[in-house]
Order: sequence, then structure tokens, then C-alpha cells
Amino acid sequence: MGMIGGGPGAFIGPVHRIAAELDREIELVAGSFSSDADRSRQAGEIYRVDPKRAYPDLPSMLSGEAARDDGIDFVTIATPNHNHLSAASMALESGIAVLSDKPATATFGEAKTLAAIIQRSGCAYGLTYTYSGYPLVREARARIAAGALGTVRKVIVEYAQGWLAGAAAGKQAEWRTNPAQAGEGGAIADIGVHAFHLAEFVTGLNVTQLLADLAAVVPDRALDDDCQLLLRFDNGARGMLLASQIMIGERNALRLRVYGDKGALSWSQESPNCLTLNHADNRTELLQTGDATLGSDAGWASRMPGGHPEGYLEAFANLYRDFARQLRGESGSLLPGIEDGLRGMALIHLAVTASQEEAGWINFEV
Amino acid sequence: MGMIGGGPGAFIGPVHRIAAELDREIELVAGSFSSDADRSRQAGEIYRVDPKRAYPDLPSMLSGEAARDDGIDFVTIATPNHNHLSAASMALESGIAVLSDKPATATFGEAKTLAAIIQRSGCAYGLTYTYSGYPLVREARARIAAGALGTVRKVIVEYAQGWLAGAAAGKQAEWRTNPAQAGEGGAIADIGVHAFHLAEFVTGLNVTQLLADLAAVVPDRALDDDCQLLLRFDNGARGMLLASQIMIGERNALRLRVYGDKGALSWSQESPNCLTLNHADNRTELLQTGDATLGSDAGWASRMPGGHPEGYLEAFANLYRDFARQLRGESGSLLPGIEDGLRGMALIHLAVTASQEEAGWINFEV
Amino acid sequence: MGMIGGGPGAFIGPVHRIAAELDREIELVAGSFSSDADRSRQAGEIYRVDPKRAYPDLPSMLSGEAARDDGIDFVTIATPNHNHLSAASMALESGIAVLSDKPATATFGEAKTLAAIIQRSGCAYGLTYTYSGYPLVREARARIAAGALGTVRKVIVEYAQGWLAGAAAGKQAEWRTNPAQAGEGGAIADIGVHAFHLAEFVTGLNVTQLLADLAAVVPDRALDDDCQLLLRFDNGARGMLLASQIMIGERNALRLRVYGDKGALSWSQESPNCLTLNHADNRTELLQTGDATLGSDAGWASRMPGGHPEGYLEAFANLYRDFARQLRGESGSLLPGIEDGLRGMALIHLAVTASQEEAGWINFEV
Amino acid sequence: MGMIGGGPGAFIGPVHRIAAELDREIELVAGSFSSDADRSRQAGEIYRVDPKRAYPDLPSMLSGEAARDDGIDFVTIATPNHNHLSAASMALESGIAVLSDKPATATFGEAKTLAAIIQRSGCAYGLTYTYSGYPLVREARARIAAGALGTVRKVIVEYAQGWLAGAAAGKQAEWRTNPAQAGEGGAIADIGVHAFHLAEFVTGLNVTQLLADLAAVVPDRALDDDCQLLLRFDNGARGMLLASQIMIGERNALRLRVYGDKGALSWSQESPNCLTLNHADNRTELLQTGDATLGSDAGWASRMPGGHPEGYLEAFANLYRDFARQLRGESGSLLPGIEDGLRGMALIHLAVTASQEEAGWINFEV
Repeated sequence: MGMIGGGPGAFIGPVHRIAAELDREIELVAGSFSSDADRSRQAGEIYRVDPKRAYPDLPSMLSGEAARDDGIDFVTIATPNHNHLSAASMALESGIAVLSDKPATATFGEAKTLAAIIQRSGCAYGLTYTYSGYPLVREARARIAAGALGTVRKVIVEYAQGWLAGAAAGKQAEWRTNPAQAGEGGAIADIGVHAFHLAEFVTGLNVTQLLADLAAVVPDRALDDDCQLLLRFDNGARGMLLASQIMIGERNALRLRVYGDKGALSWSQESPNCLTLNHADNRTELLQTGDATLGSDAGWASRMPGGHPEGYLEAFANLYRDFARQLRGESGSLLPGIEDGLRGMALIHLAVTASQEEAGWINFEV
Repeated sequence: MGMIGGGPGAFIGPVHRIAAELDREIELVAGSFSSDADRSRQAGEIYRVDPKRAYPDLPSMLSGEAARDDGIDFVTIATPNHNHLSAASMALESGIAVLSDKPATATFGEAKTLAAIIQRSGCAYGLTYTYSGYPLVREARARIAAGALGTVRKVIVEYAQGWLAGAAAGKQAEWRTNPAQAGEGGAIADIGVHAFHLAEFVTGLNVTQLLADLAAVVPDRALDDDCQLLLRFDNGARGMLLASQIMIGERNALRLRVYGDKGALSWSQESPNCLTLNHADNRTELLQTGDATLGSDAGWASRMPGGHPEGYLEAFANLYRDFARQLRGESGSLLPGIEDGLRGMALIHLAVTASQEEAGWINFEV
Repeated sequence: MGMIGGGPGAFIGPVHRIAAELDREIELVAGSFSSDADRSRQAGEIYRVDPKRAYPDLPSMLSGEAARDDGIDFVTIATPNHNHLSAASMALESGIAVLSDKPATATFGEAKTLAAIIQRSGCAYGLTYTYSGYPLVREARARIAAGALGTVRKVIVEYAQGWLAGAAAGKQAEWRTNPAQAGEGGAIADIGVHAFHLAEFVTGLNVTQLLADLAAVVPDRALDDDCQLLLRFDNGARGMLLASQIMIGERNALRLRVYGDKGALSWSQESPNCLTLNHADNRTELLQTGDATLGSDAGWASRMPGGHPEGYLEAFANLYRDFARQLRGESGSLLPGIEDGLRGMALIHLAVTASQEEAGWINFEV
Repeated sequence: MGMIGGGPGAFIGPVHRIAAELDREIELVAGSFSSDADRSRQAGEIYRVDPKRAYPDLPSMLSGEAARDDGIDFVTIATPNHNHLSAASMALESGIAVLSDKPATATFGEAKTLAAIIQRSGCAYGLTYTYSGYPLVREARARIAAGALGTVRKVIVEYAQGWLAGAAAGKQAEWRTNPAQAGEGGAIADIGVHAFHLAEFVTGLNVTQLLADLAAVVPDRALDDDCQLLLRFDNGARGMLLASQIMIGERNALRLRVYGDKGALSWSQESPNCLTLNHADNRTELLQTGDATLGSDAGWASRMPGGHPEGYLEAFANLYRDFARQLRGESGSLLPGIEDGLRGMALIHLAVTASQEEAGWINFEV
């Protein structure tokens, strides 16, 4: 694979590299790591990529790799949001498959453009909603699909962070709070879309209506940092979504709770190897990654026996394994695609707009 | 004290008795336990009250007790909501102080009437929002008042139960889901008011606006059983309130999280002896009931050294101790009064109405 | 009931009073609260006992109460350990039943003497090993008796405290570390016996051999403050017992884990309303006080619906309810008696002696 | 690197591969994966190693690699215990550094032989006591070294598993319970040495005396499966070590608690990203991986920001990064070496022998 972005100072670039290579199905062999040629070369050294394949820009990479027998099969996009569309388009139009960090693009309009390009290209496209890679997230999804909770009635999803509770400091904070780089959404785009995707992914339901209450709580912040949403799902279920980056003491607290008429379940990203099932008679059952009682999706997504904690990188790596399955034409992949990307971009756009306009309940349409 | 209601089959009557007597400052000596004279007498036997003082109705109790040298000093009201106003009024107008179960009355209008009667009577009136009696709830309140969190920005309060996830069965379930007995609110009146009070009590803030989304999820239910609210507080803080009785697997999961610009705290009723403090540098501190590092409010409210769990009954008993302090003319009571009752009734009325009308954000006015 | 000891400064006296009266089956009406007549009278005022019944010494109480029609039915002993034998004997020989704080006496020899006196007297005698009063401890006992774990193989019981990690300060610390008042054991007598009793009570097994390693870790301490024991049970099961008062940060961390060949369970006193069951297929099940899936012993021992935490006082009160059942001639009591007392005293004596002599494995004989 | 063992059906081989390559400092390029040439070739395919470098036996690998310019720098040993000595010796004597799975050898005598060979060879030798690679284990070690707990008084270490609670089934279970492959120790060798190492690693203390109580609880088992040890450390601290594989419901529950005269800490492998600190005033502080308040050892050992769980593989990878630092001549490595290996083998030998002989306290000497 080749990487776009992920150069010096990036958080997510090295994560993509480790995740991609964890299972030895994929290797990072090229990159256009920065818009600055020198920095791209430096990054290449850090990633131990052949210097000839640390390209100064994306067109060079695409042409350089196309000229090789052992050229890349796909690119992974790890740039700030505003570059996602151009990078993905260029690759796809060269016939190169794309695995992109989320959100799909910087704006909803761009996402629609991208969807058309993907379709035209016939290339594979995946989106790394990381949390869908956790074994027990997939177990939760499978259990709900199999009816373990009965009809889903209520969904509560929270994504709480505290690192933007003060004025933004550092590269990571700065681009995320800058509309020119992040797009129209702040917390809703950075983490809200993860929460939204997780809720839909696990329940198998689609949001059809929402009511959004977003705010920029920290003084002088241009984008939202605290989001409260009410949701309606297509089966009539109700829900709440919280996404906030001002909740001091919270690190990366993505937590999902789903309640049906026969049972309930909850999962928390910071303790990802435990899934809690509640039965109607009040018995609580705890399942753990690696247990023999888990289904095949969770089994596939886990590398270790029970009690040997697997974490964020392993979940991320599962998305790469999914993408590899797709590229090999195998079935079973649960990797999110452009439809999920469109829904995420619609969420950002609709939530930001509806909140500004105090629009009350609006329809969620992609 | 004399008890009104709390007869056979009641849950809360015996709780009031134990709580009242726990610290030997108060004794249950009389009662009008049921509107049925026989059942009232039977209840008197169970409570070990002098048979002469197990009255067939409230007027008899008030006159009977007035005629004794050792007559009751106050009554406690443990009836379903629709009797609260008449019982309280009758007692107050006889010059007898009242400690009432929540909510204050069955309707907002009744609450205003009651407030006027209280003022006219000059008698003490208290409301048992039980959860305000927990030592660490009071510690949380004191810490926030002392500025430990800086300016409060966000408040998340949840009260989750699952026992009404199916069709109502049993006396407790039936009256709570019957508008004739419960009033206009279901879950919002039964547990939502607790959550609302807890949020205001601990933060010292008042809600000024709300947006309500209530539903009767269980088929054929006449009152709401699942409530989602968005809140605004008088200092600009934002919040979410969840109150639901259809969340299978949840027993009595009242949980409060408060986030300021300098720190955060969280408390959960089902683990009431632990208070979590989060500092801006991400250190998490756990405080426990009985710790020497706690303040005087928490110290007063605790009877045991650390590690000896105190629970619901002890919290409830603290409200009775508060009321006894008031009756003795001592300071320090944190017992909720009719102002809290009015706010609770306003919450019920406004949430039910605004939700039905899909009114969006409304002002919270008492 | 009448109380012996429990005067000013005592921790356990007020606990006994609350526990005794919690369920209105028992009332504290008399006391010999201190060996100092003035202090006994003061304590009587605090306990709101009729001043005439706050006696200067135990003989006065016994004769004074015997002369009344409404005299006491039993005494509760809440003195330091060295007075247990004389107080209990005097009461029993007057035909008065005795409920005693643990340990039964100050020495193993005294316990044998007491056992003989009890037998001779024909009076009821109970011992407040508090932790056996918790609903889920009784549930654990019932489940093991019913075979839920199969054959018990391993028992791990810990009682960890940290309050004596420094030099003893205060009345509570002083008498417990003074051989003249506490007897031959320190931590082993104060908390080790609780752990030992809990292990035997829940498993239904008896210890037959032990290996003891006791130490006085804090400089200049005369009694043990840190105890490590290895155990053998009568069915061949193996175990470990830890009792320590120097474990900083631990408050009252009594925790039991039992492993059989079909399942396992664990319980922790600081979260007493949850019982964890582990099945051989690795499913973990959490049970909570108040659940409908619990058996009759746990049901009887609980006053509240699930999610309303019950704590130490409620557990203690269950022992009083048990004693009341015994006095009324009813069945079902699980209250420990003198046999448990003898075993506890044997533990103290054998552990202290065996540790001093580095005796290795010794037989546990009463 | 080249791998010895780790062929089809092995658990630990793939773990070594992932751990080694996680940070792109090391690459698996050769292997002698099985004593069966066909199986070795198959494993090579799975590991995506050049077929020419999937050798039929270790001598071939050593000579084959020596003949290449890009030959391996070191081997990693992932065979059952009885092959450790011969594999390590052969590599070392060819001048190839060795990173070995634990325990160092099958017997204490072999370990002494190996120590001499290592010294003679002048090659680097490391031992993968995995748990010493966790960031918060290193933080705990650094804090204790810096005096945060004062003088350590008590150490409790447990390693609880339940997967051998029944008759052994499967390759993993079989070799571990077979003296011919596992050596003289069962659970003590498989997991007890981990617990022992963790206790010494974190506290910086050495065990000087122990008392061992080992048993084969499961019928017809030839090696111990349940171990209880009492410990004395060189500063006079006391301790308990539990290592058992019959504790149903436990997966990989390695847990360490250390108590000093100023504070205490605890860490649990199944929640590895949280370290609990207890202060003498009873305040509890929770630290998490990724926090800015952590020291440099923990910082180095962590790849992700707080709240992004890191697990077993990441801890394991840190040992490889340590070994890479050693091979590059850099300082800072905390990787265990042959001294730790000798202590581990001494533990196995002494515990097994002392338990069989019921020897009571014995000196721990290497």
C-alpha cells in the first residue's frame, strides 16, 4: 500500500502503518507523506520505505508506482479532512483502490461527488470507522441481528473526550478546530460520526430523524466542541447521541448501549474486551474477547486467547484485513464504505445546519 | 410522627418508617395507613403502632392526635401522587408539619396551591428527594460550590430503570402507569424529577430552558415511560437528562456527571459510596464515604467508617434527620422544600406538554 | 434488649443499636454502657434510654431488669474482647439470652468455658459475624450447597484494611493493638476471624489444617497486624487467607472467591449487592440484591428492590432478625453461635502459636 | 530475525512475529518452525517468509543464514520448554543473539548451563517476560524506585487461569501438563514465573525465602496446577504468590498489589491501561496509559494517546524494541535477561521440591 499524508507530527499515520501491517497481509511500500517534499522524504525514512518511493506529491506516487511491476495495490488516506476528496479522486481515477480515514470528505457535497467517482472508477473504497473493527462490536452486531434483544427500542451512544476543554494547542488540536481544514463540523465531524456509525452498525438500523444541539463551548472556538442529538431510527426506536471534546477527564470514551424489548447490551471502547448482556429477568452476562461462546465474526476479529487484552491497533488492523478480503474478492468484510461515508457527511451537515437554525426535528436524508 | 398511606403492599411506607427511626430522633407512633379502615388497622399492627393510633382516615388522625399530650409533631405522606395535595393541606391547616414523598402533588397547578397553603400555615414542609441524602451527593455539591470544577459547562444526568419494559404488573407498576393516580407524567414524574433535582441540587444551577422528547414505548401505555431532555442552565451550561423505565437490565441507575472548565465529577447511585473527581491534567481521584478528606456535609451524613457500605435507607434517613434539625430550629438542613417541589411539578408539566406539542426549546418557568 | 458496653467513643455500640431496631422487632431499652457510672448515664441519654435503665454496671442491670414486668429479653455485648466472657456468663447465669460481638471471648480457653456455660444455661447465644448477614453471602452459601459450583476446590478469602498502617492513634486503634484488651491476636482476632468464618459459612466446609505466617509489621506493635495463612478444608480443598491492617488504601476489603470443578463465585463486601458467578464455559453472570432470580435466604435478608443499595447496617440487622427468630422459636436462622465462636478462637490461638513456633502445617482442632 | 519453533498450532509463534514487527524495527525473515521439515515449510508460507529461508532444522538455519549477506541478527525461541537450552546454545555458539520465550530452560540445572554459555558467547540474550513490557508496569516500577510508596512492606501477586480446570485437551494443554515437555513444573513454570518476575521487577526487591504449597488438583495430572506460596523479600517485606490454572472463570488474571509505608499501588493485566495508586490519606488516584503525568519509561512504552487501549501485543512488542535497543547498543532497555531466567528456574525447582518435601520456609538461592 501507499500512504497519503501521515507525515511528521501526525497521530493517525503511524497507526495506519501498524494496523495495515499487523497481520502481514499488507505492506507499506510507498508514500506521499506530506505536501512538503523534504518532509515526505523524512517520513519515508521513519517508515523505512525505500527512499525512491517516498514521493513529493500524490501524482508522482501514482505515476511512479504505476510504472513498477510491484507497484501499490491501494492507497490509504491519512490527511486532514479537506484533502480527502482530491486525494481519493486522484487515486481512484488512476484505478487505485482507496482506504480512507474518516470522515469521507470535508463536506457533504464533496461526499456525493466522491460517491459518483467511486462508482465510476469501479475501484474498492473503504472507510476506517475504527471502532467497527473491535471483536465485541461485531459480536454485538451479530447478536442483535440474530434477535437476542428482540426489537430495538432505545439506543444511547456517547463519545466523550476532554482534550479540547481548553484552548487548542498542538497540531492535532489546531486543524480539528479550524474550519478551513476540518470542514463545517468540529466534534460532530471528528468523533460524532464515529458514534453515529457505531450505533447504526451495531443495531442494523438507520437514523431517519434527528434533533441537534451543537455548541462551541470554549471561547473563540469556530467549530462545535459539544454536541447533543436526539435520534429516531427507522423501526421507531429512539436514541440519544452525545459527542463532546470538553468533558474533562474523559479520554476516548465511546460507549454504546442498546435496549430491546427482550434484552439489552452495552459496550465501552475503553474496556473493549468486555460486552455486557442484560436479560429481561435481570441477569447480567459478561462476555469477553476470546471466549468460545462468541460467534464467528468476533472470532475472526480476535488474535489472542481470552484475557490477553486486544486494543485499538488490533481493531484498526481488522479493517485492513477486511479491505484485504475485499481486494482478494473474498466475502465477509464488514468494512464501512462510501454509503457509510455519505451518511456520516450528511450527519455533519444536517446537525450543524439544524442546530444553527434551531430547526427542531429534521429528516435525515442522504 | 404519623404516617399517611404506606399501608399493605406499599413499597415506600416501610422505607419511610425505617428511615425516620434509624437515628432515634423520630418515632412512628400513629398512622392513617389506608383509606380502608381495616387495612389501616392491619398496617398499624405491622408497624407496631398502638392500635388506638391506627386511624381509619386522616381527619381522625389529626383530631385524635391533637387531643393527646404526646401527639404527633409531623406527618409523613406516603400515598400515591393524587392524594398528596389533600393530605398535605389538611395536615398543614391543622398546624402539623409535613414531610412528603415526591412529587409534591399530582399536577403543577396543585403544587402552586400547596405552596400557598404552606406559606399561610407557617408550618415546616419537606420533600424526600431521597438521593440528595447521600453523603457523596452532598460532597459533590460542596465541592462544586467551592469551585473545584471551575465554571460548570455540562451536566449529564440519567435515571434508568427496566422494570416497566413489559406490560405493568403489580400494584407498584399499575398506579405509576395510570394517569388517574400518577398525574400527567409517567417516568418523568416517577424518576425524571429525581434526576432533575439531583442535577440542580449538586450544581447549584437552575434549568432555564428545556427541550423534551417523551414517549410511551410500551404498547397501550397511557403515560410516558421513556424521556429524553436537553437542558440549558442559568449560567449557560448545557445538559442532557434521560429518564426511562424500559431499559432492560437497569435497576435504579441514577447517575450524574458534571463537567466544568477546571475539572469534572461523577456519581452513581448504585455505587453510592464512591465519588469520582477528574482533574484537568487527567488524574482521576476516587473519594469514598467515610474518608477523612471529605467535608462536613458528607461527614454529617455518614454513620460508618470507610468501607462499611451505606445505602439507600441511610440516605433516606438523612432527610429525616434534616427535617428533625429544621423542627428543632437548627441550621444546616439540605432537605428539599416546596420550591424544589414546584420546580419538579413544573418539569413534569412542561416536559409532557412541550413533548406533545413538539414545541422545541421552551423556557422553564415556575 | 439491653446493651453491655457501647458507651461514648465506641464504634460498634451505635451500630448494634441501629441494627437491632431497624426492623422494629427489637428495642434498646436498657444498658450498662460503661464501667464508669457517669459515662453509662451519658450514653443512656444519647441512646434515649429511660435514665433509670442506664445502669452503672451489669449486675445492676440484670437485677434491675429482672424486677420489671417489661424487663429485657436479652443483652447484646459490645465491649472490648477481654470483657466478653464475664459479661456473657453473668447474663446467661441470670437466664438472659446473649447476642455478642465477635470474637466470642479473649482467649480460646475462655471460649471453652463460655461454651460450657451456654450449654448449662439453656439460653440462646448468638455471635455477630456481620458479614454472614449480607443477602448475597447467603445466596452464595445456598448456591454452593445446591451444587452450583460442583465440588469446591479452592477458597481465597482476604480481609484487607489500611487504618493501622501507622502507629495506633485513637481509642479504636489502641485497644485493638493492646494484648491486655484484645487478647493474644491482633489482626487475626479483629478481622481474620471474620474472613475465616465467611469462608466456612459460604462453602459449608471446615478447615482441618492450616499454616500461619503472622507478623507485627509496624514497629513496636505488640500484636500481629499482617497475617498470611494457607488452609486445607475437610473435602481436600485448598485455600489462602489474608488478613492485614497495614494495606494502605484498603478500607474494609473483605473479599471471598470460591472455585469448584463446575463453576466459581466471588463476592466483595465493599460492593455487597453484586455476586459474580463464573461458569465453566467462561460466561460470567452478575446477580444483584433484590433480583427475582435469587433464592429465599437472600430474599428474606433484603428489604429493598434491586438497585437500592443495602449496606453494612442492613446486614447487621439481619443478624438481629435471626436472633429474634430464634427467641421466638422460629426456624431459618443462620446466625452464628458458640460453635463458630469456638472455631474463631481456635483460629486465633492456633495461628498465633503456630506462627511464633514456625510450626508449618498444623491440625485445626477445636 | 529468525524464529525457532512457533509452527502450526502454536499460540506464541504468531504473537512473537507480530510483536517483533509491530514497530518496523525488526523483520521475521527466516525460521526453523518445526522439527518436521514439511511443517516448517508450511509455517514459512503462513509467515510469508522466503521459502528458501524456512529451514528444516536449526543447524540449517544457522548455516544458511550465516552464508547470506542479509542473514539474521538474532533468533527468537518459541518452542516448548524442553528445547530451549539446545536451541539457545546452538545459536549463541554460532554467535547469534537470542531472544527466548520463558522459562529460560526446562530445568534449573539447564539454566545454569545456559548462563555459562551466554557469558562465554558474549552474545545478547533476552527473555520475554511479557508483562514487564506494559507501560504501566514500568510506571509502577519507576514510581516505587522513586519512593512513592515509601518502604515496601507487602506484595501480593496472583496469576489466575481456569483453562486447565478440566482434563487437558488440545496441544497447548497437553505439553504444559506433560513433564517430558514442560519440565518439573506445571502452573509454577507456565505462569508462576511470570508472577514472580513481575513482583521482583516492579518492586526492585528480591525474594530471599519462600514457602511453597503446590498441588495437582485435577485427577491424574502429573504436574502442579495450583500453587500457593508465601514469600520474604530482601528488605523484610512479606508476600503471597498465587498461580493456578484451575480457577474457573479466570482467563489471564495476573494482578499485582504492592503496599508500602507511605502508599500502595495495584495493577491488573486484564485492565492493563489503568494503574491505581493509594495514598496514606486514603485518596485513590487512577493513572492511565497515555497520560501526560506518567514518566518516561511508560511514555516510551506507549504508542497511542490516552483512551486508545493498548494490549498484550503492544506490551510484547516493547520487549522486542528493548532487544533492538540492546542490539544497537542503546541504553534504557528493561528487557529481562538470564539473571531473571535463573531466578525463574530456581523458583520452579525450589517450589516443586520444597512443596513435595513439605519443607516449610526455605532460602531462595540461585
